[in-house]
Amino acid sequence: MSKTPYQDLEDRFRRMDAVSGALSMLHWDMSAMMPPGGVDSRTEQLAVLQTLHHAMLTDPAVPDLLDGAQADVHLDIWQQANVQGMRRTWVHAAAIDADLVEATSRACAKCETVWRDARKNSDFKTILPHLEEVLNLTRQQAEAKADKLGVSPYDALLDQYEPQGRAAEIDVVFADLKGFLPDFLDDVLSRQASGPALLPLQGPFPAAQQKALGKTFMTALGFDFNHGRLDESHHPFCGGTYDDVRLTTRYDEADFISALMGVLHETGHALYDQGLPKQWRGQPVGADRGMSIHESQSLLMEMQACRSPEFLHYAAPLLRETFNGSGEAWSEDNLTRLYTKVEKGFIRVDADEVTYPAHVILRFNLERAAIQGDLQMADLPGAWNDGLKAILGITPPSDREGCLQDIHWFDGAWGYFPTYTLGAMTAAQFFAKAKADQPEILPSIAKGDFAPLLGWLRDHVHAKGCLLSTSDLIQDATGEPLNAAHFKAHLKARYLGS
Amino acid sequence: MSKTPYQDLEDRFRRMDAVSGALSMLHWDMSAMMPPGGVDSRTEQLAVLQTLHHAMLTDPAVPDLLDGAQADVHLDIWQQANVQGMRRTWVHAAAIDADLVEATSRACAKCETVWRDARKNSDFKTILPHLEEVLNLTRQQAEAKADKLGVSPYDALLDQYEPQGRAAEIDVVFADLKGFLPDFLDDVLSRQASGPALLPLQGPFPAAQQKALGKTFMTALGFDFNHGRLDESHHPFCGGTYDDVRLTTRYDEADFISALMGVLHETGHALYDQGLPKQWRGQPVGADRGMSIHESQSLLMEMQACRSPEFLHYAAPLLRETFNGSGEAWSEDNLTRLYTKVEKGFIRVDADEVTYPAHVILRFNLERAAIQGDLQMADLPGAWNDGLKAILGITPPSDREGCLQDIHWFDGAWGYFPTYTLGAMTAAQFFAKAKADQPEILPSIAKGDFAPLLGWLRDHVHAKGCLLSTSDLIQDATGEPLNAAHFKAHLKARYLGS
Repeated sequence: MSKTPYQDLEDRFRRMDAVSGALSMLHWDMSAMMPPGGVDSRTEQLAVLQTLHHAMLTDPAVPDLLDGAQADVHLDIWQQANVQGMRRTWVHAAAIDADLVEATSRACAKCETVWRDARKNSDFKTILPHLEEVLNLTRQQAEAKADKLGVSPYDALLDQYEPQGRAAEIDVVFADLKGFLPDFLDDVLSRQASGPALLPLQGPFPAAQQKALGKTFMTALGFDFNHGRLDESHHPFCGGTYDDVRLTTRYDEADFISALMGVLHETGHALYDQGLPKQWRGQPVGADRGMSIHESQSLLMEMQACRSPEFLHYAAPLLRETFNGSGEAWSEDNLTRLYTKVEKGFIRVDADEVTYPAHVILRFNLERAAIQGDLQMADLPGAWNDGLKAILGITPPSDREGCLQDIHWFDGAWGYFPTYTLGAMTAAQFFAKAKADQPEILPSIAKGDFAPLLGWLRDHVHAKGCLLSTSDLIQDATGEPLNAAHFKAHLKARYLGS
Repeated sequence: MSKTPYQDLEDRFRRMDAVSGALSMLHWDMSAMMPPGGVDSRTEQLAVLQTLHHAMLTDPAVPDLLDGAQADVHLDIWQQANVQGMRRTWVHAAAIDADLVEATSRACAKCETVWRDARKNSDFKTILPHLEEVLNLTRQQAEAKADKLGVSPYDALLDQYEPQGRAAEIDVVFADLKGFLPDFLDDVLSRQASGPALLPLQGPFPAAQQKALGKTFMTALGFDFNHGRLDESHHPFCGGTYDDVRLTTRYDEADFISALMGVLHETGHALYDQGLPKQWRGQPVGADRGMSIHESQSLLMEMQACRSPEFLHYAAPLLRETFNGSGEAWSEDNLTRLYTKVEKGFIRVDADEVTYPAHVILRFNLERAAIQGDLQMADLPGAWNDGLKAILGITPPSDREGCLQDIHWFDGAWGYFPTYTLGAMTAAQFFAKAKADQPEILPSIAKGDFAPLLGWLRDHVHAKGCLLSTSDLIQDATGEPLNAAHFKAHLKARYLGS
């Protein structure tokens, strides 16, 4: 018996997923393992595999198969959601031709490589032509997709990371935050200034010990090392495939908190990947729901769970033991204050959760202007510095601490930034509901037991894959639509004790 | 202007090479990095990429393009050789249909899995039906390819690894060796028995120090770490791509010599890869010439250069310093004797260069008989034991030390074994000519300077890629056809001092 259109599509998407998995592994290798001289052949491999993936997805048979599958009345709700995911993936791919895909892939790989040195040397001039080329190709993609999706070019890019995300809706919640944050930040800073002085921790903290401790915490959170690894890369990330999750971090021997929280953050991502429905591996409906939900999982672990007094109660003895710490500086109380210190800083990835939204709003405004053609890349350093001054009142000493700090734009990820703050709000909303549903979550964390929390996330988020839209997923899990109230309440409780 | 057939083929082969490179990296990762739980998704990735590669190679347009390119009178000699390489690659792929490829792939994967336990338990009976199935499918492939290539089925398999290699020619040189070895081996063993007793080296030898020393030697030999890495895997190999060579080894803390010589062996492979003509990257003519030349490069480094007294003169102080060695056991003299100890043993991969050819000749005879239908797999253990008795005078205590020891046949690699000994003879012939051309080669090695040797290899072997056939390459480089004389002379000089 011949395959139904739906079965045919499942086969095709399984094969495409294998190509995507190969691409993901090659990306991880490029960041964590590859010697510098491998870049040309790797660029070629990535470009060719991306082109093959694109050709599979835009095969002339696919539109009819999608129509056939959509008309199939025998599909269950998972299969129906799978067809929707297939169509969405196809629309994004079919909007742009193979030459543009390949040119973009090559330009991004090259730009990312040059960026690594440019950031080190704070050398914007060298990266500029590469960045301009990446933006140029990204705008071509944005316009082509905007046409097919019936949205603005920026929304078309956003839609790649946040399905059905729209800048106009983000504006509303970001405006809420933007109105709330400046006064709140002042209050937090005064309160911290009038509190007990922070006692610094004396290093050095050897990388090998940081790594061992990171693995201990990863295991406690529920990371499955049979299906993943921890390595080092310049820019920490969570890559690989759902069955073989590759986390990376970087170690600073003068400060272990940054790498450790980085590991906990990426572990949140990894737990989501490892918890996605195994019976739908390789199919769109079995994938993560999008970047804001993904980020909600990392921020829930890093910010909500692992900076709580309960986590520090569990972690403090392990920290003292690992680094031979003793005295008042290593007390739970001082550690908790160190972990929740708020400070205006230049670097997004080092920012605390209070100032983080300001960094995101800056980038959201700049990238939207760039995609709309209202900001030239030559003007980026100035626009960045002006924007940071306006929103946080500080100016970076160099482009290294300014517009060169993040990999995203140099790697072609335009439209990604807002998902961080959407994720932070979603995390707060999930965690509030999880704690209400399961009061033992925080007491268990105090004992190093994350099972109640992970259980709630598995049931309400991870196991859903892409069965529901982002907004339906949030509504189903928490009983209300996404809103900033839980995030604001969390910040007020943690930083003002109110 | 549209592309010529030749240009079209170059584009296609460049893209296929990128897929092969991706496959090679994923294989390396599977051996050196992947957590166990990643095996299912990795298997899927490899299978899909292999299918895509096969589809690209057997695209219906390829035969006409090959004819067109072959008729193109404007091609230079590199381009002509490139077209020959393309046709050879295509003939091997097009000779067998996709069903047979898939059936063989499945049978080999299954057989290899069963073999791991069968070897452990010395259980030939369990593996027998799987091995029979692999042989059955391999013979079908051999016959299909023999038909297209106009050679015998065994030669068709050999041709996959050693282009234009023919068993009848191998018979001649192997007969020469077979006549020489038994008496020679007796002489060497008596001479060693009557010499000074070998003084053992006392461990443990920490893996981290072995690795650091291995990297020191790799750098001395000329390995470019900008285009490669050294890692660990269960079965050491040289993988990756020509621009990003991934070496692996494994460390035994009781014996550093084995891992160190393994690293030097794989470095010989790597130097060849790194030295192939860069302007022909991704094209058949820019690839390595085949397995016997590849093995000649590893054996030239491991056996010819790095067991010489000159190498030990350079290496001994480094060895003593690394492992805190002192006394007579760590003298150049004792180290040289340890590095050149000869012994009759059951295991090929542990064999010295004197007894190694005996292991290969045994396997060559058996696999040829099997492919010709003259040896049934049920009779393999007896045939193996009789053969080893006849050639080395010893009988393995069990099949684990006998016909179950090597992965090759169980994994479908029939026709591969003779290239090891062809490589050993080629290495001796290259090294003799190199030393004659450049008398400073050995004195330089004594100072840790491999540049004169590497320069000769770059000029006469590496830079040629696949411009010449194997026999023309050897003739051009050494002024004579491949023969056993230099190998025999080398053995006599090293082991009998004559």
